[in-house]
Amino acid sequence: MTENSTNTVPEVLYLIHKDPALLQEALTQMRPPDIAEGLRNLPTDAAAHVMAALPFDVAVQVFDEPELTRERCGMILKMDDETAGLLVDAMSPDQQADLFREIPEKERGRLLKLLPPPSRQSLQKLLEYAPETAGGIMTTEFATIPSTWTVEEALRYISEVGAAKETIYAIYIIDPANQTLVKVVSLRELLVGDRAANVMNVGNPRPPLTVSPDADREDVARMISKYNLLAIPVVDASKHVLGIVTVDDVIDTLVKEQTEDAQKFGGMEALDAPYNEIGFFPMIRKRAGWLCALFLSEMLTATAMQRFQGEIEHAAVLAMFIPLVMSSGGNSGSQATSLVIRALALRELKLRDWWRIALRELPTGLTLGAILGVIGFTRIVLWQRLHIFSYGPHYLLVATTVGLALVGIVAFGSLAGSMLPFLLKKLGFDPASASAPFVATLVDVTGLVIYFSVAFVMLRGTLL
Amino acid sequence: MTENSTNTVPEVLYLIHKDPALLQEALTQMRPPDIAEGLRNLPTDAAAHVMAALPFDVAVQVFDEPELTRERCGMILKMDDETAGLLVDAMSPDQQADLFREIPEKERGRLLKLLPPPSRQSLQKLLEYAPETAGGIMTTEFATIPSTWTVEEALRYISEVGAAKETIYAIYIIDPANQTLVKVVSLRELLVGDRAANVMNVGNPRPPLTVSPDADREDVARMISKYNLLAIPVVDASKHVLGIVTVDDVIDTLVKEQTEDAQKFGGMEALDAPYNEIGFFPMIRKRAGWLCALFLSEMLTATAMQRFQGEIEHAAVLAMFIPLVMSSGGNSGSQATSLVIRALALRELKLRDWWRIALRELPTGLTLGAILGVIGFTRIVLWQRLHIFSYGPHYLLVATTVGLALVGIVAFGSLAGSMLPFLLKKLGFDPASASAPFVATLVDVTGLVIYFSVAFVMLRGTLL
Repeated sequence: MTENSTNTVPEVLYLIHKDPALLQEALTQMRPPDIAEGLRNLPTDAAAHVMAALPFDVAVQVFDEPELTRERCGMILKMDDETAGLLVDAMSPDQQADLFREIPEKERGRLLKLLPPPSRQSLQKLLEYAPETAGGIMTTEFATIPSTWTVEEALRYISEVGAAKETIYAIYIIDPANQTLVKVVSLRELLVGDRAANVMNVGNPRPPLTVSPDADREDVARMISKYNLLAIPVVDASKHVLGIVTVDDVIDTLVKEQTEDAQKFGGMEALDAPYNEIGFFPMIRKRAGWLCALFLSEMLTATAMQRFQGEIEHAAVLAMFIPLVMSSGGNSGSQATSLVIRALALRELKLRDWWRIALRELPTGLTLGAILGVIGFTRIVLWQRLHIFSYGPHYLLVATTVGLALVGIVAFGSLAGSMLPFLLKKLGFDPASASAPFVATLVDVTGLVIYFSVAFVMLRGTLL
Repeated sequence: MTENSTNTVPEVLYLIHKDPALLQEALTQMRPPDIAEGLRNLPTDAAAHVMAALPFDVAVQVFDEPELTRERCGMILKMDDETAGLLVDAMSPDQQADLFREIPEKERGRLLKLLPPPSRQSLQKLLEYAPETAGGIMTTEFATIPSTWTVEEALRYISEVGAAKETIYAIYIIDPANQTLVKVVSLRELLVGDRAANVMNVGNPRPPLTVSPDADREDVARMISKYNLLAIPVVDASKHVLGIVTVDDVIDTLVKEQTEDAQKFGGMEALDAPYNEIGFFPMIRKRAGWLCALFLSEMLTATAMQRFQGEIEHAAVLAMFIPLVMSSGGNSGSQATSLVIRALALRELKLRDWWRIALRELPTGLTLGAILGVIGFTRIVLWQRLHIFSYGPHYLLVATTVGLALVGIVAFGSLAGSMLPFLLKKLGFDPASASAPFVATLVDVTGLVIYFSVAFVMLRGTLL
C-alpha cells in the first residue's frame, strides 16, 4: 500500500512549493487525498502557500476533499479575493456548502459575493438544508437526459459532459414535458444495451428509488447500502430532481456517525474534530459537561447511603460488597444498552418493539444475575471456610444477601439499560446518548436500594 | 421512501408462491434486497419454497444479497442437489465464499461437488483467505483489457462482457507479456477519452493503488473511502490481479465492524446476528462470559475493602462516598477509552503515540478531577451547613478527603482509560475490547485504594 508515503508530504510540499518544476514532478506521483492529508499537518499559513503554488486543477481537487473541511476554511480566508473566488467556484457544490457552513458568519457574505451569480444562488439554496439531511449532503452536478433519446444519443451526450459531473454511472431520465424524474439507468445498462433502443426500454422497469431533501442522512446511507447504489436522487414532492447523494458521501456519513456514536456511548459530547487536533480547553468542555451531570446524579448514591447509615454501622461487612454488586448492575446495563442502541441504529428494532425487548431482557437479566449470584455466594462461603477472611457468624446470611441482591440488580440493570435508548428516542433525543456511564449511574442508585432492601429482609434480627 | 413496503413482503410472497402469474406480477415491483429482507422473516422451509418459485435470475440476485448470509445456508441445505448446484454456481464468487463459510463442515464437501470443476477450484482458492482480509471479501469477476488496445476496442469489449462482471466502472489494464497489472482506468475516463487513443494514454499516469490479499478489510475500506474509489484491485507480490474489492463490500464491512465495536465497548462478545434473531441461550453465553470475568475482577474491590474494614468501622461516613468517587473514576476512564479506541480505529493515532496521549490525558484528568472535587467538597459542606445531613465534627476533613480523592481518581481513570486500548493493541488484542465496563472495573479497585489512602493521611488522629 502506498498510503504510508504521505508522512513526509507536508514538509516536502512546503520546501518545494516555490520551485514549479520540482513541485510539478512531485505532484505527478501524488494523489489529491494525500496532498489534502499532508496539508492538514502544516500550519494554515504554510498550507495556504502550498495551495497557491499548486496547479489550479490539482488545487481544486485537493480543496474538494472532505478531509480538509476545517482546514480549508482557514486557508480560504488567507487567500486573495480572486484566487479564493476562482477556487471556490470550481469546487463541487456539496463541498462548497460544507465549506460555507464552516466559514464564520461575518465573512460569509463577503465570500459569497466573490462567486458568479448562478453559483451563488445554487449555493444559497443548498445552504438552506440542514447538514444532516439528504439536502445537506447532496451535490447538484449530475447527468440528466430526456426520455425521448436513444441509447446511442445518451452515450454520446455522456461522453461529452462526463468530465464535469460528479458521477455519470447513474443517469437520470427526465420527462421533457414537465421535467420530472421518470427513470434511473446505470451507465452499465446503457453500455450493454441496444444502441438504437429508446432509453426508457433499457434496464429494469421498476420506479426509481428516491429520497426527499429532508430525509435523515443516516437513512439515505442505509438505502444506498441496502440497494447497492452508486447514487440516489433527491427529489421534491413533484418529482423534480434537486440533486444526488453519492456512495462516497455515504461512506463519509457512516464514518462520521460512527465516531459520534462511539464518543457519546463513552459518556461525552461528540467531538467535531480528530482527537489530535482539539485544544485542551475545548476538550475539557466536551468532557466536563456529562461528567458533572453524571457526578451530580451519582450524588444520589450518597443520599441513599445516608439513609442506610444505621445498617452500615451495624454491619460494616455489608459495605464491603457495595462496589461489587453496584458495578454488576452497571455492567449488565451497559451490555443491554449497547445492544439496543445498535439495533435501533440499524433499524433492526423499532420504537414500538420496546415491550418485546423488555419481555426478553427480564429473563435474560434474571439468568445472568443468577449466574453472578451463585459465583458471589460461593466466593463468600469459600473465603469463610478457607479462613481467608471472616464475615462473622452470620456469613451464610451475608452470602445469601449478596447472591439475591445480584439477581435483582442485574435483572434491573439489563431491563433499565435496554429501555433507556427507547425512552430517549421516544422523548426525541438521540438513543445513542444512553451512554455506558449514564446507564451505570442510573443503575447505581437503584442497585444500592435493592441491596439494602434485600439486606434488611435477610438480616433483620441477626446483624440488623 | 419505498423501503417501508417490505413489512408485508414475506407473507405475500409465501401466499402467492404457488401462483406463477401472481408471483411474476408482484416481483416486477420488488427489488432483490427487499425480497431478501422479506425471506429473513419467514421460517426456513417457507423461504426455501419461495426461492424455488422465483424466476432463476431473480433467485440468483436474492441469493447474492449479503443480508441473507445466515438464512441462505439453511435454505440451500433444504433444496434438491440440482437446484442448489445451479443457484450456487450463478452466485458472485465473493458471496459463494461467504455462503460456504457458513455451511457446516460435513455438508461442505457434498455441496462443492455440485459445482462444475472451474467454479469449484476458484471457490476453493477464495476460501483459503481469512474472511476479515481483502482476499476474504474480494470477488473474481472483473474486467481486464490488454495494454495494447485502443479506447474504442476497450469500450466495445466492455459493452459485450459488461453484464457478467461485478463492476465495469473500473477497468484493469494488463501487460499481455507477463499478465501483470499496469494501470487502472475508470469507465468515465474511457468514455470521455479519444476513441482512437491507446488505453495507456487515458486518465492519469500514476501507478494504480492496490492491496495485498492479506490486507485487513478495515484498511481496504479506509483506502477505498479515502481515495473515493469504486473498487480496488487485490494483487499478489508479482502484480497479478487476484480479484477486486468493491465499494459496496466496503460499506458492508464498515457497518459490520461498527456493530462489533459497539457491542464490544458495551462489554460483551460481538453478536454474529441481529439482536432479534439470536436465541436466548446464545445471548446468555455472549453476555455471561465478560460479565463473569468483570465480576471476578471486581471481587478485588471486596478484597480491598476487607483491608479497610477498620477504617470503615471507625468512620462509616467514609463508606457513603464510595459509590460516588468510584463511579467518577469509571466515567472519566470510559470517556478517555472511547476517544482513544475511535482515534486508533480511524488511524488518527498510532501505537507509538501512547506517551503523547498520556502526557495529554494526565493534565486533562487532573483538571476534570479538580472540577468534580470542588463540586463534591461544596456538596458536603453545604449539606452540613444547611443541616440536611450531619457528617460529624470533622466534616471539613471528610469533604477535603472526598475532594482530593476525586482529583486523584479522575486523573488515574483518564490515564488508565486512555492507555488501556494502547496496551491491548500492543499485546495483539483488538483495542475495541477495552470496554467501558472493563475500564470501570480496572479503575474501581484503584479508586478504592486511592480514596482510603487519602482518607488515611487526612483523617489520621481524628476519625481514624
